[in-house]
Amino acid sequence: MEKLTIVKVGGKVVETPASLTDLLTRFAAIEGHKILVHGGGRTATQIASRLGIESELVNGRRITDLDTLRVVTMVYAGLVNKDLVAKLQAMDINALGLTGADLNYMRSEKRPVKEVDYGYVGDVKEVQPTILANLIMQGVVPVLAPLTHDKKGQLLNTNADTIAGEAAKALSHHFDVTLIYCFEKKGVLRDEQDDESVIATLTHEQFTDYVKKGMIVGGMIPKLENAFEAINAGVKTVIITRADAITGESGTRIS
Amino acid sequence: MEKLTIVKVGGKVVETPASLTDLLTRFAAIEGHKILVHGGGRTATQIASRLGIESELVNGRRITDLDTLRVVTMVYAGLVNKDLVAKLQAMDINALGLTGADLNYMRSEKRPVKEVDYGYVGDVKEVQPTILANLIMQGVVPVLAPLTHDKKGQLLNTNADTIAGEAAKALSHHFDVTLIYCFEKKGVLRDEQDDESVIATLTHEQFTDYVKKGMIVGGMIPKLENAFEAINAGVKTVIITRADAITGESGTRIS
Repeated sequence: MEKLTIVKVGGKVVETPASLTDLLTRFAAIEGHKILVHGGGRTATQIASRLGIESELVNGRRITDLDTLRVVTMVYAGLVNKDLVAKLQAMDINALGLTGADLNYMRSEKRPVKEVDYGYVGDVKEVQPTILANLIMQGVVPVLAPLTHDKKGQLLNTNADTIAGEAAKALSHHFDVTLIYCFEKKGVLRDEQDDESVIATLTHEQFTDYVKKGMIVGGMIPKLENAFEAINAGVKTVIITRADAITGESGTRIS
Repeated sequence: MEKLTIVKVGGKVVETPASLTDLLTRFAAIEGHKILVHGGGRTATQIASRLGIESELVNGRRITDLDTLRVVTMVYAGLVNKDLVAKLQAMDINALGLTGADLNYMRSEKRPVKEVDYGYVGDVKEVQPTILANLIMQGVVPVLAPLTHDKKGQLLNTNADTIAGEAAKALSHHFDVTLIYCFEKKGVLRDEQDDESVIATLTHEQFTDYVKKGMIVGGMIPKLENAFEAINAGVKTVIITRADAITGESGTRIS
């Protein structure tokens, strides 16, 4: 199988001009087939605020009422996605911006209301990777915005880590997939206070152990759970690192 | 060659829920390959106004400074385009929303400043229809937003009539293309005051004659010039009609 690298970057990286240019240069240097998955939460919060729409976050997740959905559709699928596509095209990368509704490549269902009503947020139910895989084989580089749809006409806000993980799993039937999650640190740290204490490789056993010992905490836990789920579903390698290290050997490697 | 119908609808039709539903039902009923090209100017003006950005129009064309470009990117490529894509997917139409930057299918250049500085507005220079044509042959229905790019990283605002005309011309090498321009009237009128005085067919000779006599005036002139240009470039039929008549036999036919 041919190689495919899926890079997920958070909002902060794509929303700062200097780090964006750096990211795109590094992304362009990745050999072979590739996909970029992006966030955009900071811009969404700014635009929402300018439109007089208050952003409410519960456990780091945005509560998405209809007005907020309109804003994230504008920002994720419009502003951020098309800016990335145009900039990649300038680097001779044949980018194609997509939401899950486009080509119906990712279908979700509105999250059921339990303790929290997240509003128009989608839990992924089905990925259709065939057309996507064909386009990738033709040299196209998909740029995935964190939006899905329910196939009943409703767009739904969906976490970019989830989009990256689900796309990686589905495409692992077509490609030898490496999934790179970028965040602020160089990798998963042994000691939260020491930026250089990167764990080079992590097994599921070690992960469970480190969580028990309180070494891995907070938002890193669901990120790593996603990573192990991807590995179990056929993704070859998951790397957790910083956006400025996606072409290097650093970061935490899970395989 | 297989048939391809390209339908261009203005902002008003897609921005009013009732007429949008009606349009999509009629569009879905068109047999064979198809493309939808949309505007979105009214929503762009509203969002711009809510963001405190003034919209300036000269001869019906929007002056696009950087702030306005951000708004139209959000509205055209995000809000309007993805809503159409999701709604078409709900009707089992495999829609794919695109700007000219996506797949680099339409490249433009920033309009040179003459009497008017239109700002970030693009004049189309090159259409690459191959990947688009392949996708259409696979059953994909492109939904084209009125934005192009200069292949140097800059998105550019581009009139939706132009997008439709240029796409039609380029795809006429792959398909037997019918281009339908929708506007408020049933067709080109012999008498502006009489909505039923639709000219059924129009040759270029008649067009020139009607313009001379002052029967065809205003915004209809560039629309028809586009239409004749498309015919000369290989498009089989151009129809000018109302959005509620795209599946019927009414309207003005140019071929």
